[in-house]
Amino acid sequence: MAQGYSPDDTIVALATPQGVSGLAVIRLSGKDAIHITQQVFTGKTLVDQPSHTIHLGTLTEGGKTIDEVLVSLFKEPNSFTKENSIEISCHGSPVIVRQIIKLFLKRGARLAEPGEFTKRAFMNGRFDLAQAEAVGDLIHAESENARQAALNQMRGGFSKEIKFLRQELIHFASLIELELDFGEEDVEFAKRKDLLQLIERIQTYLARLIISFDQGNVIKNGIPTVIAGKPNAGKSTLLNALLNEEKALVSEIPGTTRDVIEDEITLGGTIFRFMDTAGLRDTNDSIEALGISRARERMRAASLILYVVDLSKASLNEIIQEDEELKALGIPYIKVGNKLDKAPTQLLKEIENQEFILISAAHKTNLDTLKEVILSKFNIREVKQGDVLVTNLRHYQKLTETHEALNRVIIGLDSEITGDFLAMDIRQALYFLGEITGEITSDDLLENIFANFCIGK
Amino acid sequence: MAQGYSPDDTIVALATPQGVSGLAVIRLSGKDAIHITQQVFTGKTLVDQPSHTIHLGTLTEGGKTIDEVLVSLFKEPNSFTKENSIEISCHGSPVIVRQIIKLFLKRGARLAEPGEFTKRAFMNGRFDLAQAEAVGDLIHAESENARQAALNQMRGGFSKEIKFLRQELIHFASLIELELDFGEEDVEFAKRKDLLQLIERIQTYLARLIISFDQGNVIKNGIPTVIAGKPNAGKSTLLNALLNEEKALVSEIPGTTRDVIEDEITLGGTIFRFMDTAGLRDTNDSIEALGISRARERMRAASLILYVVDLSKASLNEIIQEDEELKALGIPYIKVGNKLDKAPTQLLKEIENQEFILISAAHKTNLDTLKEVILSKFNIREVKQGDVLVTNLRHYQKLTETHEALNRVIIGLDSEITGDFLAMDIRQALYFLGEITGEITSDDLLENIFANFCIGK
Repeated sequence: MAQGYSPDDTIVALATPQGVSGLAVIRLSGKDAIHITQQVFTGKTLVDQPSHTIHLGTLTEGGKTIDEVLVSLFKEPNSFTKENSIEISCHGSPVIVRQIIKLFLKRGARLAEPGEFTKRAFMNGRFDLAQAEAVGDLIHAESENARQAALNQMRGGFSKEIKFLRQELIHFASLIELELDFGEEDVEFAKRKDLLQLIERIQTYLARLIISFDQGNVIKNGIPTVIAGKPNAGKSTLLNALLNEEKALVSEIPGTTRDVIEDEITLGGTIFRFMDTAGLRDTNDSIEALGISRARERMRAASLILYVVDLSKASLNEIIQEDEELKALGIPYIKVGNKLDKAPTQLLKEIENQEFILISAAHKTNLDTLKEVILSKFNIREVKQGDVLVTNLRHYQKLTETHEALNRVIIGLDSEITGDFLAMDIRQALYFLGEITGEITSDDLLENIFANFCIGK
Repeated sequence: MAQGYSPDDTIVALATPQGVSGLAVIRLSGKDAIHITQQVFTGKTLVDQPSHTIHLGTLTEGGKTIDEVLVSLFKEPNSFTKENSIEISCHGSPVIVRQIIKLFLKRGARLAEPGEFTKRAFMNGRFDLAQAEAVGDLIHAESENARQAALNQMRGGFSKEIKFLRQELIHFASLIELELDFGEEDVEFAKRKDLLQLIERIQTYLARLIISFDQGNVIKNGIPTVIAGKPNAGKSTLLNALLNEEKALVSEIPGTTRDVIEDEITLGGTIFRFMDTAGLRDTNDSIEALGISRARERMRAASLILYVVDLSKASLNEIIQEDEELKALGIPYIKVGNKLDKAPTQLLKEIENQEFILISAAHKTNLDTLKEVILSKFNIREVKQGDVLVTNLRHYQKLTETHEALNRVIIGLDSEITGDFLAMDIRQALYFLGEITGEITSDDLLENIFANFCIGK
């Protein structure tokens, strides 16, 4: 399982974000990590020190000191990668970071590829592939629920259960293949009834995981939401009102404000990603018509539509017509009656039965109710410690493929097909399951997975 | 010297830049840093562990794990701040960082102010004020020379010498004040000749430091440079040609590209900061005229002007006229003859004696010569390990004030003024010297100095 992995290479990378800051951490991993560091480190003799200790000293080249640093020492196999590892904590200056990395490159380290530290941890058996992927998800988690789901997966998640079920299945596969060795003889080492029971147990577990992806996907990727409506209905004002509260919340702790993607908000621990749309109206202007056609496209791609109506101008007829159009899209929607303060009493009476959420975006009236209604459209619940959720599309696909292959086995058992056909479908299921946890991998698969990681992780 | 410092407070901050990355480091310092961490850390009992050790565990609140982390333990006085200190290395997710900091705030830590860790290190005697300031300069160093100058100062620089000279001066001040106690009696404890010798020694040292600020300031702040010239002379093309090479150089190591301020380049380890200017020409357009007047203002504020002439269009008359205008400004300038490939032979002959650097910005011809000439205008040399340079305006001012006060003492000695006047000027010199190294400080002074630091340093 050592594809694309040269354990003799020592890799180096900045592990913290780029920029000016109190400190930066540069990470080395590989056989020679300690040796390479020692060549430029004036302090203690690192190799004589115990693992998990920190040493003050300087990084020096040709008698010239680059920086005063703390060196953290991790000796194999007691490190993240299970290799000799060093973490250099230096002053957080990009000039210093660049010089230190150059120093190590000159001494024989090479720049790490994205995710290469985690890849090595996987290769060296620290965790399985699904857990390695969770490390990346944890770093990119944009909400509390996403963090918890990733952490749960990183700490085991469904990996153990899948590995266990796979082992049992391998046992049956071997027995069936043994039968095949006996050729014409009518032997049955693999009890069909027991096999069916096992597969049904596996299918039940898989089905639960597959269903969880609905929630898992929402948690990881957020809910694409469109704010639609006529021009000047107050779409942008509503978005800003929702965003501003979020911003205030996010910047509660100075210095930790995350890079807020301008148009997303977190409700109930879940991200709603807002997509801009042009105002909807009949138009003869071809460019505006194009914008409106795009808006309708986006509405169709959304998981939720907030349809904003300007109560100060709307008529009941219009509202009824728009409602029919919305229903026709077949996507969950919420009708938001905006400019409540300017709404004619007559209209308010007429739309009493229209399920409007009445707000004033400009005055931030009734936004909490709107948020509650938004949340109620989705079955979002807090992710608890230990909850097992599939958030990863790759896992979802492999689980689905396994489920299909095992369904074929069940049908085959039912129609009493021969062992060789059974064995084929079981082997396929085993293959898919193995790809989830990484017991079966390919270079391409690993490359795809780790290419999305940060450098330095 | 405990102004604005509550040693009982435990402070917490993110020490690495904001953003998604392999890891992030959160730093705590203060009496309760270890205790507060222990409350949420499930791993070893930290207080029983030796200093400078690293411990794997989880940060957990109410049975819910926030993240798996490495905790680095520093026990007082063996830490940067000389207080109990903890560094949490967590997954580099802004969501996680925010939650961990919240966790610590809840347990009684408070958010650190900018530079508060360094301020505490100063307060607790790890280094003097000039060295503390160098920590900030080191982090903000934008060039190799700036880094080396800051590091030299952080490791001692002129601090030791100044403290030593100040001690000797204090000795004399005491003797003179002792004389004053004897009132009318004609005693002379402080030998005037020895005092003069000491002060001359101090003045020689101070003068050397004061002169070094010319280079030090350039190293720290760069050289403000204006590219001027008529519209379409090729000013932007030249700037881009210079910048592009820089960018290629900077991004040599992927993942460590610093936030390049778009219009600065590093030549010979020194930053040249380019300021945009509007093309210079006579105009009736009042807005354009305003732009041109601003350009002239900037030229006057610059330390170097690159004056670009379009050789394909210029005439000798114009060139001579412009040369006179440039000379009148009294600022170092370089005349750049651009579009060399399109220059008429006649003109090239006519300007042979005009000290032009002939280039083609578009074809990147002769840019190296231009760079050499730019460098030759300044006495820039590489900063070596141990070089003592004043880069800090505050130090420069205090050194100058000391120098002036001691000059008054010399004059006083020369004219044999009474001890009380001598004592006054010596006390003033002592005060200014003390402010450099922080033996004399005020809340305001400290606040000003550390306000420019990063949070987390």
